[in-house]
Order: sequence, then C-alpha cells, then structure tokens
Amino acid sequence: MRTIWWEDGKVILINQKKLPSQLTYIECTHYKRVAKAIKTLEIRGAPAIGIAAAMGLALAAYHTESTTKDHFLKELTRAAKIITSTRPTAQNLFWAANRVLHKANMSTAPVETAKQEVIHEAQRMAEEDIHINKTMGTYGATLLDDGDTIGTICNAGWLATAGEYGTALGVIKVAHEQGKNISTIALETRPVLQGARLTAFELQHDGIDVKIITDGAIGYYCYEGLINKFICGADRIIVSSGCHVINKVGTHTVSITANHYNIPFYVAAPLSTFDPESRLEDAIIEMRNPREITEINGKQIVPENVLALNPAFDITPPHLIDAIVTEKGIIYPPFKQNYKKLFTKKSL
Amino acid sequence: MRTIWWEDGKVILINQKKLPSQLTYIECTHYKRVAKAIKTLEIRGAPAIGIAAAMGLALAAYHTESTTKDHFLKELTRAAKIITSTRPTAQNLFWAANRVLHKANMSTAPVETAKQEVIHEAQRMAEEDIHINKTMGTYGATLLDDGDTIGTICNAGWLATAGEYGTALGVIKVAHEQGKNISTIALETRPVLQGARLTAFELQHDGIDVKIITDGAIGYYCYEGLINKFICGADRIIVSSGCHVINKVGTHTVSITANHYNIPFYVAAPLSTFDPESRLEDAIIEMRNPREITEINGKQIVPENVLALNPAFDITPPHLIDAIVTEKGIIYPPFKQNYKKLFTKKSL
Repeated sequence: MRTIWWEDGKVILINQKKLPSQLTYIECTHYKRVAKAIKTLEIRGAPAIGIAAAMGLALAAYHTESTTKDHFLKELTRAAKIITSTRPTAQNLFWAANRVLHKANMSTAPVETAKQEVIHEAQRMAEEDIHINKTMGTYGATLLDDGDTIGTICNAGWLATAGEYGTALGVIKVAHEQGKNISTIALETRPVLQGARLTAFELQHDGIDVKIITDGAIGYYCYEGLINKFICGADRIIVSSGCHVINKVGTHTVSITANHYNIPFYVAAPLSTFDPESRLEDAIIEMRNPREITEINGKQIVPENVLALNPAFDITPPHLIDAIVTEKGIIYPPFKQNYKKLFTKKSL
Repeated sequence: MRTIWWEDGKVILINQKKLPSQLTYIECTHYKRVAKAIKTLEIRGAPAIGIAAAMGLALAAYHTESTTKDHFLKELTRAAKIITSTRPTAQNLFWAANRVLHKANMSTAPVETAKQEVIHEAQRMAEEDIHINKTMGTYGATLLDDGDTIGTICNAGWLATAGEYGTALGVIKVAHEQGKNISTIALETRPVLQGARLTAFELQHDGIDVKIITDGAIGYYCYEGLINKFICGADRIIVSSGCHVINKVGTHTVSITANHYNIPFYVAAPLSTFDPESRLEDAIIEMRNPREITEINGKQIVPENVLALNPAFDITPPHLIDAIVTEKGIIYPPFKQNYKKLFTKKSL
C-alpha cells in the first residue's frame, strides 16, 4: 500500500489521524494543504513527510504562474520555507525540500520544463523511498532470528514512508517474508498513540503477531525476558556527535531499558535521515501542543491550569545503540567512522 | 482531606474515577459495594485499599445477624475473602483484612461487643494510616533539598491513603511545608492516568508546582538534567528477596532510567506494605482488562482483534533503589538486613 502519491495534479495521502478505524484519503490541491497535513500529523514519519515535502513542492510547481525561471525559483523557495517550517526535527523534511530545490536550481530548461522536472523528481523520490526501504529491510532482516520477539515504538512502518515496507517495520516485514517466525510488542506511544493505532494496524495487516503495551510497561517485559530485540526508526541522526539518534519521545527510555537488560537495540533509517552538518547542541526538539497530553478525545484529563510538557522527540546517544540499518548496509559502532566509510566504499 | 471514612453505619469514599473533573462520593452500605469500589479503581492506592478492606469488614460486622461468635467469625472471614479477591497484588489489602480478622478472633467479648470492636478497629486503622504517613513524610523530607525537581509515577498521595498526606507525595508535602522549594514532574501513568488525573489534582491543591509528562518522556527529562530525584509508592515489598518493590507498572522503567543517570530513586511505603513472608517468585502481578489500553473514553483505539497486555504492576529490584522511607525511619541498602534491624531496635 502507498501512503502518499501524485495523481493528476493532486497529492493524495492517507489521513493517518483517522486510522485504524477509518481508511480515508486527503486530496491536496495546494502545497499549503500538504504543509497543514504534515503539521497536524495527518501524515507523519520522517521518510513520509520528506516525500510529502517533495510532493508539496510539485504542487507548487504544477500551479505556478511564473513565466521566468527566477520567479519560479523564488516561488518554490517560499513554498519550501512554509513546508519545512511545519516540523523542525525530522531531517528528511529538509533533505527532501533541498533536493527538489536543488533540482530546480540546477535545471537549465525553461520554466515549463523545469516545472515538469520538479513534479517528476517528487514522484521519483517516492519510488526511490520504497526501493530504499525494501533494501534496508533486507539488510536489517539479517539481524533478526526465527523465534524473536521484537519491541518497537511509534510507527516506523509503511505509513511512515512512501509505502510498502517502512523502516524498522520493513526490517521485521522482510524477516517475516523470509519465513522467520517473528512476534512483536508495540509500545502504544503516547501521546498520539502511533504504536497502538498505526503499528498495530500495519502488523495485523501483514499477518505479523503484535501485542500492544503501555510505554511504561517496557521495563516489566524486559524484566520478564519477553522481548529479545528492539528496533525503531529515526527522525534525525546527528553524525558529528557520533550518531545521536533523534526519534519519537520514549525511544531513549526504551534504549536505556534495553541496555540495562543487554537486549540489542537497533535503529533503521535511510541515509536521508542522517544529518551530516548539525551539531548536537543545535538539534531542535519539537515541543508540541500540551493538549495532546491533557485532553483525550476532546475530554480534559489533567486538572485545569496544570501544565503538560510535550516534547515530540528525544535523543538516544550512540553508546546505547547496537547497530544502525541503512539502505547501504548495517553500520556498527563506531558509527561516525563507519558511516563515513559507507561513502568511500560505495558511491551514492 | 479524607479519602475514606466511617459515618453512621456507612462507608463514604471519594470516587477517584471521576477526578479531577468531579469530586463525588460513594456511600457504601454493604461490604460488597466496597469490594466493587476496590476492583473498579473507584478507590485505589495500597494503603487506601487496605483501609477500604478494614472498613468493608466493619460494614459486614455492622450488618451481621449472627448471634454466635463462631457464625460471626465465619461471616467476617467470608467477607474478607471476597474483599481480598478484588486485587491480588497490594499487600496492604491482605494485611488490613488479616488485622481485622485477628482482632475479631482474639476478642473474648460477646458478638455485639466484638462487632463494635471490629468497627472501631477499622476506624483506628484509618487514623493510624494518616499518622503513619505524616511521620513517614517527616523522615522522607530529609532526603529532599530546596530547589529539587522530583519525578513521581502514579499516585502516592493522600488519595492513595486514608487521607491528608499520602506516601511518596507525603514526603514532598512535608518538605514543601518545611519551606523547601520543590517542583514536581508527574508521569501521566497509563493506562488509567492516575498521575495526570490524581497526582496533578493533589499537588495543585497543595500549591506544589507540578508538570505532567508522558511515561515515555522520562528518558528525555533525565537526559536534559531536569529531574534530580525520584520518589514513588509501593503496593508490595518482598522482603525475602532483599526488598523487591512491586508498584504501578512503569515504576521499574523509571528506576532503570534513574539508575542510568545516577539520579536517586526512593520508595515511600508504610511497614504494612512490606511482605515478610512471600517468595519473589510467588508474587502475583495483576493483569487487568486490556480494554484499559485498547479503549479511551469508550472509543476503540487499537485495531479490532489486536491484543493488549495490561499488567497493573511491575517489579523493581533492590539494587536500583537508593532508600525506602517508612514510618519507623529510612531504610538504606542492604534493605533486608536493615528492615529487620528496624524491628529489633524499635518495637512496633
């Protein structure tokens, strides 16, 4: 299944806020609608919102009335700014917008052709994303054994990408397709419950055994010896510091728990999630609306005037990570050096 | 404020399921109604359900039509069985029921007097509980410093006891009353959200700064250095194994996280929570209805036919605990030996 695609001058995406009870689609005819979908989590997951950014720019290009190249580029740049301002943490969002802008900037074609090039680039990126995730899944599946019970947090499945495989769940899916008997335990992932809603939906759909636990219960299940590996996705990996992994809040707590019990903790992320430039201290952790915590289904849970703190992400240091799965192979510690070797060995 | 009390042949208790939006009371005229209140979490918290058990037996005594002592004792024993079958984990429930039964068994008085003795014993236990918690708070407050930010999970405040102070929150409350500037971070505590609903309600009521975070966010706040001590309550402490602490699910995850960041992790529990007899392997972790996880406000969150696992408690080993606060003083490691010294030094 696809999460987002281009169709006759429109961007169609699954409304993830309605899952799992309803499988509905949003038709975007303006890039600002795509930006809104990213901001409000109608589409989420680092690779998926990267593709959404590219598709949003394709919409901007599709509707452009610019007649000069210069004006077209300014228009695209403005659209990219609006789209990337929606969520500050995911690297893929910026990576994708930059790739499309770069394509347009590098084009020597007239506006009408450059516009088509942008639209094609966005579609190519979606196809590439699916291919990348399948390759990543194939590498990652070598880490999983028949009989494993795998813990995961948030949703790093096909809904978090352009479709079909996903990142962390892609690894599980490929292992399952290889005939390995894999069970999963999905953390519900408060406050937005992506684990309970989306990961459960995907794994059930793929016929993979899944059970839901609360985020706090992870310690209990490790204590009981009922989980033997963890794998999760990433929103941004800061290379300069040795590969700190920024991912859905709760991931770091899982990584500490895994480490305490000597359970392997893996991350699966495409190279587009790696941030080779930022310093760790400059990484922005998105603080979302406290109402995601204080209200459930529109009902106030927390007493009035009590504040909730709602960071959407946390930071897992490299020493708590056993391996990072990418589409170019598995990176082991020391991650920074081995990430760089990936680029010298195999040209991208 | 009181959580539960005896009034003219009735047991009145705050309906904690309605908090924080409504402060309502349940009037119980039959011990089975008290048992139901315990089972459905209308009253929860280890000391509070201990007192509820005693009050339930007082109701059974109040309404007895037994004319012989033997029949009266059988009736009480049957009621105790029904009351203690509601929740298998909390030690206080069994401790309290046994204390009342013992009182009745030891009584040499005729039925009518023995019945009054049972009712008085239950009321005495509620008063003692409040006194114990205040004393515990006074001991525990020595562990807290001006300017501390204290993390806590679930609700270990006055709502979890007969009233007034509470266990872990009693320690915070006494420190606050002593003029120490204490801030708190309360984990929302899925699935029943006792932290978001009850702990927030209590701390706000007491004028103590409180902020709510999701359970998974604990790693992030420790990583950021924003919490410098943890304190929580306990449902049962298994002495024989060195004092494993059974408490609300999520506690063990917090203890691992605290340990990873060298943040002190304290437990506050009256001696009635210590289980000097059971072996660790015999400890029962109550599995509650998965619907507490799969449904929120009556709305299905998880896809149909996906199972959730809902242990209500977890087990924290003694090596992750820095101190246990009791009404007889603070116990430091080795806990088992020092717990026993408490009894030789000071008679109970």
